[in-house]
Amino acid sequence: MATIKRRKITVVGGGFTGTTTALMTAQKELGDVVLVDIPDNEGPVKGKALDMLESAPVQGFDAKVTGTSDYADTADSDIVVITAGIPRKPGMSRDDLISTNAGIMRSVTKEIVRYSPECLIIVLTNPVDAMTYAVYQESGFPKNRVIGQSGVLDTARFNTFIAEELNVSVEDVRGFVLGGHGDDMVPMLRYSSVGGIPVEKLIAPDRLEAIVERTRKGGGEIVSLLGTGSAYYAPAAAITQMVEAVLKDKKRVLPAIAYLEGEYGYSDMYLGVPCMLGGAGLEKVFELDLNEEEKKQLDQSAESVKNVMKAL
Amino acid sequence: MATIKRRKITVVGGGFTGTTTALMTAQKELGDVVLVDIPDNEGPVKGKALDMLESAPVQGFDAKVTGTSDYADTADSDIVVITAGIPRKPGMSRDDLISTNAGIMRSVTKEIVRYSPECLIIVLTNPVDAMTYAVYQESGFPKNRVIGQSGVLDTARFNTFIAEELNVSVEDVRGFVLGGHGDDMVPMLRYSSVGGIPVEKLIAPDRLEAIVERTRKGGGEIVSLLGTGSAYYAPAAAITQMVEAVLKDKKRVLPAIAYLEGEYGYSDMYLGVPCMLGGAGLEKVFELDLNEEEKKQLDQSAESVKNVMKAL
Amino acid sequence: MATIKRRKITVVGGGFTGTTTALMTAQKELGDVVLVDIPDNEGPVKGKALDMLESAPVQGFDAKVTGTSDYADTADSDIVVITAGIPRKPGMSRDDLISTNAGIMRSVTKEIVRYSPECLIIVLTNPVDAMTYAVYQESGFPKNRVIGQSGVLDTARFNTFIAEELNVSVEDVRGFVLGGHGDDMVPMLRYSSVGGIPVEKLIAPDRLEAIVERTRKGGGEIVSLLGTGSAYYAPAAAITQMVEAVLKDKKRVLPAIAYLEGEYGYSDMYLGVPCMLGGAGLEKVFELDLNEEEKKQLDQSAESVKNVMKAL
Amino acid sequence: MATIKRRKITVVGGGFTGTTTALMTAQKELGDVVLVDIPDNEGPVKGKALDMLESAPVQGFDAKVTGTSDYADTADSDIVVITAGIPRKPGMSRDDLISTNAGIMRSVTKEIVRYSPECLIIVLTNPVDAMTYAVYQESGFPKNRVIGQSGVLDTARFNTFIAEELNVSVEDVRGFVLGGHGDDMVPMLRYSSVGGIPVEKLIAPDRLEAIVERTRKGGGEIVSLLGTGSAYYAPAAAITQMVEAVLKDKKRVLPAIAYLEGEYGYSDMYLGVPCMLGGAGLEKVFELDLNEEEKKQLDQSAESVKNVMKAL
Repeated sequence: MATIKRRKITVVGGGFTGTTTALMTAQKELGDVVLVDIPDNEGPVKGKALDMLESAPVQGFDAKVTGTSDYADTADSDIVVITAGIPRKPGMSRDDLISTNAGIMRSVTKEIVRYSPECLIIVLTNPVDAMTYAVYQESGFPKNRVIGQSGVLDTARFNTFIAEELNVSVEDVRGFVLGGHGDDMVPMLRYSSVGGIPVEKLIAPDRLEAIVERTRKGGGEIVSLLGTGSAYYAPAAAITQMVEAVLKDKKRVLPAIAYLEGEYGYSDMYLGVPCMLGGAGLEKVFELDLNEEEKKQLDQSAESVKNVMKAL
Repeated sequence: MATIKRRKITVVGGGFTGTTTALMTAQKELGDVVLVDIPDNEGPVKGKALDMLESAPVQGFDAKVTGTSDYADTADSDIVVITAGIPRKPGMSRDDLISTNAGIMRSVTKEIVRYSPECLIIVLTNPVDAMTYAVYQESGFPKNRVIGQSGVLDTARFNTFIAEELNVSVEDVRGFVLGGHGDDMVPMLRYSSVGGIPVEKLIAPDRLEAIVERTRKGGGEIVSLLGTGSAYYAPAAAITQMVEAVLKDKKRVLPAIAYLEGEYGYSDMYLGVPCMLGGAGLEKVFELDLNEEEKKQLDQSAESVKNVMKAL
Repeated sequence: MATIKRRKITVVGGGFTGTTTALMTAQKELGDVVLVDIPDNEGPVKGKALDMLESAPVQGFDAKVTGTSDYADTADSDIVVITAGIPRKPGMSRDDLISTNAGIMRSVTKEIVRYSPECLIIVLTNPVDAMTYAVYQESGFPKNRVIGQSGVLDTARFNTFIAEELNVSVEDVRGFVLGGHGDDMVPMLRYSSVGGIPVEKLIAPDRLEAIVERTRKGGGEIVSLLGTGSAYYAPAAAITQMVEAVLKDKKRVLPAIAYLEGEYGYSDMYLGVPCMLGGAGLEKVFELDLNEEEKKQLDQSAESVKNVMKAL
Repeated sequence: MATIKRRKITVVGGGFTGTTTALMTAQKELGDVVLVDIPDNEGPVKGKALDMLESAPVQGFDAKVTGTSDYADTADSDIVVITAGIPRKPGMSRDDLISTNAGIMRSVTKEIVRYSPECLIIVLTNPVDAMTYAVYQESGFPKNRVIGQSGVLDTARFNTFIAEELNVSVEDVRGFVLGGHGDDMVPMLRYSSVGGIPVEKLIAPDRLEAIVERTRKGGGEIVSLLGTGSAYYAPAAAITQMVEAVLKDKKRVLPAIAYLEGEYGYSDMYLGVPCMLGGAGLEKVFELDLNEEEKKQLDQSAESVKNVMKAL
């Protein structure tokens, strides 16, 4: 028998999203988890990793969780999730933010590729479409091995609000969004349903419009409630779902930020589209028929991504 | 503190579907489970219950499973599932089958009501629409507390075949069926989707038609493969999902066999329709707009149920 | 049918331990969760609760999570977990810490009792033995309805270190500790085993001594790594296990901080002892035969608790 | 990225234990499952596999389950579980049973080795110590890749009875048995505990003796209740735990039937001993200090196994 080894997952960035991703992937026993951060944060990531590990006997999961600032410890990872990056600070221009984070993407990617040349990379850092592109370029990996997250999170928020509106189980809500994150999100209402029943039959147009608007601003709503910092539970859950889809070769049909080569009329850019995620990473992009309004919104979304990419 | 007590689930009928339902509800720790059968089968149900109980330390669930032929042991159940009944035997007329099983329903229901006057009843015995009606009448329970299972199973089969056709995760397939079980099933193709994408966009019409047909004959396919006996894994899983929806007050939107009072134009009969299932049992029937073809199929389905009911 | 309602869990204190407890109880669908904090922190607890709720569609759990500063929202909780309190600040005397936190316990308990007169209370705030006593007094609840957490966490750490030492699955390690938290912990080595094999047969005495010492200082190890703040993953997991034991009436045999009336020779005080936790809360205290060394350590532990209680 | 493939599990024998093992491994998403039986049973195994697959959408697992009579379909399995074999029939001598089942082991093993030369084999067929030996010889595999199941099941029964006696959660009971299956079982009472408390402190000697005796006869108790057939839920759960230990490289400390080379004083035979199970299969045998009585019982157990082996 080829000895069976546990899968290995590296999470870059020990902030709240990174640590929560580590927790959730460990809870599901998807593999051993390495949490990596800069040397200044080595203590905290070691501490959080140890704390998680100490929760394992009680939570009943079997996974090693370790913290480090040395990329050598990430060697031979199957999946690397990038959550590193800085948030926009007061007085910082958007372009400064983009170029700072792009720089972080490049230096992180160098290390990842050096130690895990066969891995798949999932990017969460904002602005995520552009950051995924930066990682793709720097890595030299084929497009199936570099993807970004945004649609799973947007859909999760959309589903939550619909379930709340109707007071039904969120398990039966299937929303569907395309395009960019946040404001650039393209909600596909006619493809969204509750227990199979189209949401447009269950919710009045004005209420539905309010739900769409709330979804677009979903990140901001959390930021404004928290006062400081931003959402991390739902983002971490979204990444975990993508990690699981790949590590269990599930062939899931999920929205992801994928490199496009002509799909939907766009090329050489990353955009949120419905994908099949499995053991080879991005295994397929599904092309939907869009109506005029949807196409217009998706064009706007793409335009917005391209503008950010220019700042790279 | 009002001392917290485990929920209690009774499963009537110790055949394969009954025992598998007991297993699956116990695995989910939905409550303690009592498996009840006629005195002749007391040994086997005790044996199977004990065997299940002995699997608990290894499976990691905490639930008592007991077998009995004495309904006193079922007292104060929260939910009672009826799987009892005989299958059609060679040379037996359909009417004989119906009247035999209806008799079983009545005598079982008497015992259930006597010992668990506050319970909710879920019926699985075939022909299920008519048998659910018989239980409803005998129990004197309000309609929210007597429901039948068929649509969850039909949908599960439909989803399985679609996932197989597309080689995608079944987690992302959302099929939707109305009406009676088996031949009378009304598949709602336009309300069925994969990761939000309508199945009609993903599968060619002739393939889709074949999948619908295979779903209709889904029970027969298993019977013919087995040689003797019929399906029990998927039926048990379907019931378990309904039990969970009620015991966890989930407000799930699932197809169920519900007592109609004018919905879809039918009255004083049981038919498979989209429902909300929660802590009060059947909490709502969703009425969909049907197109002409769908309405025609549903009428046929209802007609077929009424014919069976006449034989009661 | 008495309509079935979801269980309700209130977590007092929206810090890391409180929010992580909310997450873990929601993940297990133990009930709906209310996270309550002081008005100044209302925004953050609302934000964290919403973020968790938005993770539900992806994590696949069905539980409402809400944040509030109004105890009216906690009404009719089945269980209330108290994590509120301040950590010791530089220059603060131990007695000041104790009296501040005891004051918080009293005011929080008043509100809990007012809105959930039938609930069970689990205390985590440090120094936990004394704080549990303060809550017990203020609540006027019987002793089975007020317990504290420390032993599950200490045991979890002990198990983690043993698993690491032997490179075996933590699932098969069963450590066992008595007495107070941290320095006052009484490790019961002869009652600790790996897959049934006593740890003393598997690990050399000096290594075992080092593991015990590391366990005693387990909280400090995390604090020192984090730089700021203290452990929260393992503490939250420990509470969640206790909550589950009660809400599922599991009759689990776990270490808990219980009110003693003569057990082990102590009276009118709270101390960590092996308990049975079920639907009535604390259902039993197990009295073990202690050898001289163990009894001496437990006496020290009790003495230390009594000293803290004097400061109340 | 080396494309990630699902693990593959083959279960030989489509009886109740085989099918229940297929169900439980699929429920845990341990891999895709192939159920193989003789050509005469191809219909039934195909039917049961399809029925299980159709339960996946409702149970929420992602695993292919297929039935076949063609070993080519089992190619490249990671783990193969052998449940095939005949039960003892009236008038059949024990030696006839042994030689018949040994013949089945040999022919099945040939096919397994041919198609999955790198797999690990777990044997369940009785008399299991001897049958595991037969498979070991025929396979030519190293000893770490051929193991048998009995102790996990015996322990599960022992734990169940102890939990019942004390009315505590079975999660906190840790029994421990050595040696052969059934009558030859060697219960290690001093290594068995409840929440860390030795069972000997909790249960009176005569009650404990009765529990040991009931455990020894545990298989027979089920057989006698069922009237026809034997236990399958707990045996399947036991195998599933071993499969999981290997496929997730868990390093679990579990009793297993292992090839001995001097451990406990025995050589060139299979016997139930405490093992570490991980990604390499059998990774270690733990040698315990036995007292005189325990050693005597283990000798009897080994003697009994050797007698069966002579009949090979």
